[in-house]
Amino acid sequence: MSQLRKDPIVGRWTIIATERARRPAAFVDPQSTISDRKTCPFCQDIASPGIYEYHGVKVFNSGSPILDSTQPFKRHTQGLYELAHSYGSHEVVVETPEHIANMADLPIGQIKAVIQTYALRMQTHRKNPSIEYVLAYKNYGVAAGSRNIGHCRSQIMAVPVLPMRVDDKIKGAQTYFDCHERCLFCDIVSQELKNKERLVVENDDFMVIIPFAARFPFETWILPKKHHCDFADGIKGAEDSLAAIMKDILLRFKIGLNDPAYNYMIQTSPVKAPAAFKDNYHWHIEVMPRLTRVAGFERGTGFYICPIPPEMMADFLREVDIHA
Amino acid sequence: MSQLRKDPIVGRWTIIATERARRPAAFVDPQSTISDRKTCPFCQDIASPGIYEYHGVKVFNSGSPILDSTQPFKRHTQGLYELAHSYGSHEVVVETPEHIANMADLPIGQIKAVIQTYALRMQTHRKNPSIEYVLAYKNYGVAAGSRNIGHCRSQIMAVPVLPMRVDDKIKGAQTYFDCHERCLFCDIVSQELKNKERLVVENDDFMVIIPFAARFPFETWILPKKHHCDFADGIKGAEDSLAAIMKDILLRFKIGLNDPAYNYMIQTSPVKAPAAFKDNYHWHIEVMPRLTRVAGFERGTGFYICPIPPEMMADFLREVDIHA
Repeated sequence: MSQLRKDPIVGRWTIIATERARRPAAFVDPQSTISDRKTCPFCQDIASPGIYEYHGVKVFNSGSPILDSTQPFKRHTQGLYELAHSYGSHEVVVETPEHIANMADLPIGQIKAVIQTYALRMQTHRKNPSIEYVLAYKNYGVAAGSRNIGHCRSQIMAVPVLPMRVDDKIKGAQTYFDCHERCLFCDIVSQELKNKERLVVENDDFMVIIPFAARFPFETWILPKKHHCDFADGIKGAEDSLAAIMKDILLRFKIGLNDPAYNYMIQTSPVKAPAAFKDNYHWHIEVMPRLTRVAGFERGTGFYICPIPPEMMADFLREVDIHA
Repeated sequence: MSQLRKDPIVGRWTIIATERARRPAAFVDPQSTISDRKTCPFCQDIASPGIYEYHGVKVFNSGSPILDSTQPFKRHTQGLYELAHSYGSHEVVVETPEHIANMADLPIGQIKAVIQTYALRMQTHRKNPSIEYVLAYKNYGVAAGSRNIGHCRSQIMAVPVLPMRVDDKIKGAQTYFDCHERCLFCDIVSQELKNKERLVVENDDFMVIIPFAARFPFETWILPKKHHCDFADGIKGAEDSLAAIMKDILLRFKIGLNDPAYNYMIQTSPVKAPAAFKDNYHWHIEVMPRLTRVAGFERGTGFYICPIPPEMMADFLREVDIHA
């Protein structure tokens, strides 16, 4: 069984694969897998019963899970170190029965079904009292950490500890709220809608901006205009406009940036959010193409160098003709 | 002039290139530069006077600096955002007059001169009252964020704000000290020397371990056995053994992992360390080959998945024959 290990210095958790560990030599010449319709494992899987099914979207337990919940979650120590077995769930969301690679090419209705599936799985996982956070995310393309299979899918991880970056965001939002008695994200929404230089696209419920201090070229955030800390509850009634704006930004990437690899990560509240926290935090989605590599400076300091101004990125993406 | 911008949520700083910004199209098809001895810019530079010279190591101001100190450092606001012009220094350390690509292939004496150069530049930069941190680091190979020029060099950045990751380490070390009245890193040194499963190599003054909760395959830390918070002061008298252990681990990477791209980052104390902090923090070096890509899960959560156990990595690196 894999392990969860905590870095004793900064408190970051790492999942350490043990049973299905790759041998050291496997890192020297990694092989990229390329599938067509006939060899695509997801075209096969979609015919078999998943653990959940919703409007053509099927959820399966990962074929190579790095988390499992067969034993109860229990933390223990090894000298000064803390660890646990890697408790949790690791699911694959196969987004369409069709062999289509990029979510940008799915109909809006299908993207809506994917979004609703995330919400429904989050609602299920948070009933488990050992789960602290549920992350839904997508890796598209080899540079984004995916195998090159050519079939739209995403992943859901339910984990028993609060991830460090989520904790950083919560603390930042809380500090701002303590100071101003307003939600930081709501203030960002207002300022960006007024200023418009970093605004890429908006609809009634959502907006896409390049963040003021973007870390990477074409990093974008999808922000709901209406305050809610939680994705699963917050999207109610706005599923269509979220699906539409997701397709819009993914098409801008595909057409404007030559079909780049990308990741998106839904940044929702922790499962056990204290009541106060409902006012402080504001769910959102980070979407980022993978166009550059992170160098030593960034790794060493958590201090990023972005080679293009956010306002220039927003200009560029605004001008992409997605109906071409 | 470039800008320093602060993420309003987590407090992370990003340097935003403006004047020498790359145009959006430049990210679509990045070109890798490959040089030989005749076209190598560092073989040319080494003949011209640098800003500093020490035993065959020459320091130059970066040809494309992202930090500059011609105007005084001043933070200001744009609505709720904080920014500044990107004050500081950005230097390139050309490590040898020879056209040699990998530091693993330099003589120990030359590596020692590089280490001493870092220490001397840190001592100079910290006299500037606007500087909060000095980072010395290396990017080797394209996957590590470097251009493929084939000439050993590293970089030194002196910045006017405390980088987020440094702050995280300091806070973690301080929390441990407050709880145990002992340095966390000294305790790690003791436990790892006793346990030995994650120990790769040691000498009188230093040890190389795979960290307990390693984020990446073959992430290593060089830890000084003797407590000191500061690199420049702490290496005094131990320069030879640091150079020897750096060459040793870099050779293990080169021979055992087929000359991978790698980064190292010297993790020293902030310039304005309060007196108390001298007991809490313990300088060290992170050295990591770049063998895998970070996927959406890691980016979204700051929660890593390491596909091989640290103990297996240490075993593998211990067995590499560096005298072959």
